[in-house]
Amino acid sequence: VFVLGVDPGLTRCGYGAVVGGPSGLEAVAAGVVTTDRAADAPARLAELQHGVRGLLADLAPEVVAIERTFFQANVRTAMAVGQASGVALAEAAAAGCDVAQYTPNEVKQAVTGWGAAPKEQVARMVQSLLGMAERPCPADAADALALALCHHARARLRSAVTAAGR
Amino acid sequence: VFVLGVDPGLTRCGYGAVVGGPSGLEAVAAGVVTTDRAADAPARLAELQHGVRGLLADLAPEVVAIERTFFQANVRTAMAVGQASGVALAEAAAAGCDVAQYTPNEVKQAVTGWGAAPKEQVARMVQSLLGMAERPCPADAADALALALCHHARARLRSAVTAAGR
Repeated sequence: VFVLGVDPGLTRCGYGAVVGGPSGLEAVAAGVVTTDRAADAPARLAELQHGVRGLLADLAPEVVAIERTFFQANVRTAMAVGQASGVALAEAAAAGCDVAQYTPNEVKQAVTGWGAAPKEQVARMVQSLLGMAERPCPADAADALALALCHHARARLRSAVTAAGR
Repeated sequence: VFVLGVDPGLTRCGYGAVVGGPSGLEAVAAGVVTTDRAADAPARLAELQHGVRGLLADLAPEVVAIERTFFQANVRTAMAVGQASGVALAEAAAAGCDVAQYTPNEVKQAVTGWGAAPKEQVARMVQSLLGMAERPCPADAADALALALCHHARARLRSAVTAAGR
């Protein structure tokens, strides 16, 4: 399965693509979509939409795994993250991809075995699990790769459960 | 100026277009974009995106006035509203429209003179200001027309201030 992880955000939207084959999991793309900080929110959301649409067209993933956002701490940031996630979710579904959403805790749990793992540890595990020569960076790209890995782990678990049930 | 008001929501996204000419303000379209309640959130956001894009293509407004959403009460609803507003904002900016955002209080204040006016009164004032034979319905369409009226009122105020400053 070819999974694109997306960590939505207006300033930096991380993405990371992980393909699973007989020889294991491999990172095929990772980076961030950024938007012009000087522009207003609608223009930045349009820029994000354009960037995400381009990624989906270039990479053509089967599944898009997106961080499930919650409202906490800063209400202004929460609004921007909610709007950015709406744009990413709409683009992914419009592109015909299966869309899965995972909470930050689910991702950390899947990748490190610990739901409260620090970002640093997540990045290190992503590097190790994907056999990458360098630590993935920036952090948003590492988080997106972790989302893709989380989906692969869940999918493996689901097929194991299905096989056991036969 | 041709203004499209949009009251974002996943279940019902209200829209209402108001054109201002020498003979005053006129409603040229009003209704709601609905999405399939049985579908999952990403599919519904894609449906909303498709609907809003179609409206913008059909109506070609110069300005899109969108409700500025806040996080209050129900966190689940707030998330859906934030995501829906992100989709509408991105589409409006991508279509090349000027985008203005107004809070519910600003809209009520502009239309009824009272920032805490009940929905019923807003709908009645919208009907009156636009010389409509019938009360606009559903409520989401009336709210969207009120957003467009709010923008017209603000624009008039701005040009009066500019004229006075000359």
